[in-house]
Amino acid sequence: MQDTYQTLILPDVQLMLQEGDIAGLAAFCNVVHPAAVAEILDELQDDQIWPILDQAELPVRVEIFEYMSLRRQIGLVEQLDTAKMSELFEWMSADDRVDLLSRMPPDRREDVLRLIARAERNDIRKLLSYDEDSAGAIMTTEYASLPANISVREALDQLRLQAPNSETIYYVYIISEDRRLEGFISLRELILARPDARLASIMQRDVIRFKVSEQREVVAQEMGRYNFIAVPIVDADDRLVGIVTHDDAMDVVQEEATEDAYLQSAVAPLDDTYEDTPLLTILWKRGIWLLFLSIVALMNARVIDHYRSSTSETPPLFQHETGLATLILLFLPLVMASGGNAGSQSATLFIRMFALQPTDSKGGADGLIDRRLILREFVIGMALGVTLASLDFMVAWVFFGLSIAEAAAIATTVVVVVILGTSAGTLLPLGLRRAGMDPAIMSNPLIAAMIDILAVVIFYEIAGQYLS
Amino acid sequence: MQDTYQTLILPDVQLMLQEGDIAGLAAFCNVVHPAAVAEILDELQDDQIWPILDQAELPVRVEIFEYMSLRRQIGLVEQLDTAKMSELFEWMSADDRVDLLSRMPPDRREDVLRLIARAERNDIRKLLSYDEDSAGAIMTTEYASLPANISVREALDQLRLQAPNSETIYYVYIISEDRRLEGFISLRELILARPDARLASIMQRDVIRFKVSEQREVVAQEMGRYNFIAVPIVDADDRLVGIVTHDDAMDVVQEEATEDAYLQSAVAPLDDTYEDTPLLTILWKRGIWLLFLSIVALMNARVIDHYRSSTSETPPLFQHETGLATLILLFLPLVMASGGNAGSQSATLFIRMFALQPTDSKGGADGLIDRRLILREFVIGMALGVTLASLDFMVAWVFFGLSIAEAAAIATTVVVVVILGTSAGTLLPLGLRRAGMDPAIMSNPLIAAMIDILAVVIFYEIAGQYLS
Repeated sequence: MQDTYQTLILPDVQLMLQEGDIAGLAAFCNVVHPAAVAEILDELQDDQIWPILDQAELPVRVEIFEYMSLRRQIGLVEQLDTAKMSELFEWMSADDRVDLLSRMPPDRREDVLRLIARAERNDIRKLLSYDEDSAGAIMTTEYASLPANISVREALDQLRLQAPNSETIYYVYIISEDRRLEGFISLRELILARPDARLASIMQRDVIRFKVSEQREVVAQEMGRYNFIAVPIVDADDRLVGIVTHDDAMDVVQEEATEDAYLQSAVAPLDDTYEDTPLLTILWKRGIWLLFLSIVALMNARVIDHYRSSTSETPPLFQHETGLATLILLFLPLVMASGGNAGSQSATLFIRMFALQPTDSKGGADGLIDRRLILREFVIGMALGVTLASLDFMVAWVFFGLSIAEAAAIATTVVVVVILGTSAGTLLPLGLRRAGMDPAIMSNPLIAAMIDILAVVIFYEIAGQYLS
Repeated sequence: MQDTYQTLILPDVQLMLQEGDIAGLAAFCNVVHPAAVAEILDELQDDQIWPILDQAELPVRVEIFEYMSLRRQIGLVEQLDTAKMSELFEWMSADDRVDLLSRMPPDRREDVLRLIARAERNDIRKLLSYDEDSAGAIMTTEYASLPANISVREALDQLRLQAPNSETIYYVYIISEDRRLEGFISLRELILARPDARLASIMQRDVIRFKVSEQREVVAQEMGRYNFIAVPIVDADDRLVGIVTHDDAMDVVQEEATEDAYLQSAVAPLDDTYEDTPLLTILWKRGIWLLFLSIVALMNARVIDHYRSSTSETPPLFQHETGLATLILLFLPLVMASGGNAGSQSATLFIRMFALQPTDSKGGADGLIDRRLILREFVIGMALGVTLASLDFMVAWVFFGLSIAEAAAIATTVVVVVILGTSAGTLLPLGLRRAGMDPAIMSNPLIAAMIDILAVVIFYEIAGQYLS
């Protein structure tokens, strides 16, 4: 139901921007939920966004900024002068700030760090130093903590002071003077406790905690199991250094699921979402795997040839003895694998994209985005097909000693089959989604099985032409 | 770090159980986090669990019970008498109770419903009626709500009363007399507000809400985007009927990722985790897809035969004209697909199992569980191989008119290749995990490519034996 809402608001915002309606833009930023504002602004160009955000109050402006994708944030930061940039980074939450800095070029990062107060800078450098798959990399240092020897009434008063600088005050950690984690109490328990009770007497002492070096997916998984809103992260001496909150855990679960799905379909993990990744990066992340798989399939052609020649008492291929039947026998598995694997990649990329964005969140623009992505996949399919075909042509011609016509038959077939594979992998999930069905129900093996039949037809037809 | 902790505790618990150490068991249940207790008890038999849980206070007992897997809960409920069962169901939270009831046989469910007070029963029947993929099926009816015309001080007093029956009091929904959703206020805002302020003057009116019929994955996804702890669910008249909390959203995200991964690898979705699903169910969920994919591959053999006979001017196979070369040409794609697909299934099942359980949470028992699962996969591989081989044998013999020796060569090869595929799909992720690497980095296409080479060798060797 927010979809229609956002589709309705975007034209209004654009109109206000054209007319310089400062008051309207300020109201838009301050009244609509920051996440929704971020999503609406995502439809605009980088240089249109600051004139709108500048109308928001600083805390709201920073919150909206934090809801934008990292790729977008990098583009937006580039447009800021020194004063505005330092203001932005001072106000950003500790974890989002580090995420952004870690994605900026090292020299830019140093420029930014110079603008930030020394204490904060040390905090940032520390967070930047953690391994990107560790709890340290996803935690925030903005947590609520209290000593054990105060009363519930005092605790609530202190929490009010800590609230503006804490990501959550629903979970409060009790620490000793040297910051060792001694206990835990939830705001719910504080509200229900007698105001004069001491925290020491009501806190839980058996606190589940994680080391700063723990794998982030372990932390996320355990948070899911225990239904925690946040978990404390401690250093080697059991001193509290940060917390991981439920929203970061959810992000980790999604990112890990996406990474596994990509890896399993032979796509090297992407830093951004599929839609936001540049074409050349996608080509590289897919092509490198497909080339490797083609090399394995070409080795297999050699194995088939070994058996073929030894069982039929005909010499192996590299002694220049071939024909249509042999060509098909040796290279059909290669052709099938190329089409099937390219198709699995496309299907997986689209299915995960849909999983991360289950609504047509772009509203009316959805059809347009689909068309752009279909076109891009077609271009990617062609580029991948030509790349693989070039390898196949060279290997078939040079190593297998095939004639140019035979090598060209293989290469042409691979181009066509790879384009068909990427098209099927793109259009089937898209069509299923359009029909209101689960885009994943057309499994990768089924797409591959259909491509296999097409591969046979195309290979025979093309080879028949080239060899006649 | 909890792992060692749990490994240490389990023998203690077993000892206390043997010695009838009631006080020790009670302390264990009441002091250790309920989720951790549930995990430790999961190592025991159903009939050992109640003697331990009975030592816990009722609310704690129910909480521990709720952290157990649904499959386990069903087993445990079977052992209860009427009085204990009604006690359990009265205390369970609304959403967990409905999950359990929806998995029980209809006649048992009616028995249980009869034990529950009428008001609660109507609530349960309502929740049971929602589509299992909808927001209604994952929401809880235990939320905190307040009228708009009271002060912050009064609100906090009322929240204290509602706390025991609310899944969260951190988000409070403001409703009209006819339960329409009018606004929202967080406990954080309540704590920070002046005690005499009216809720109407400080609440947010622009509340993001979802219809009870909305797809559950849309709700989960949007919660992740907005970083909400909970979202309100409304009926067609915009009346508040429940909330979905962050932990349920996390479960949905995990379940949807698992379902997509299964579907993409041609495994029909399972109701339980892979480890908890009975062998026959897994055989069915995998076999039905593999049989279908084999039929497609057999159709493809017919297509290859059509082209082979028309280009080489030899008659098609069903006119009883064959030989080793033709056998390989036609059925190698079938053999390769069978092994590759069975391997992809195993790899996906193991990789998702590891993703949902990133720690060796069973501690020292992990090696034992691995061995049990490897053995089970081997049995599954054999059963799948024999099933597919039977189909292939019949089709090759009856429809393609091959000799029994030729059909048997195909069938035998399929059995061996499918067993190899499932073994590779099992052992590679397991080995990678043991080596501290990501189990997913060995992609399904790479496993398939390696199986392809083995398939060639095995097919030629076996066919050579059978036909000589």
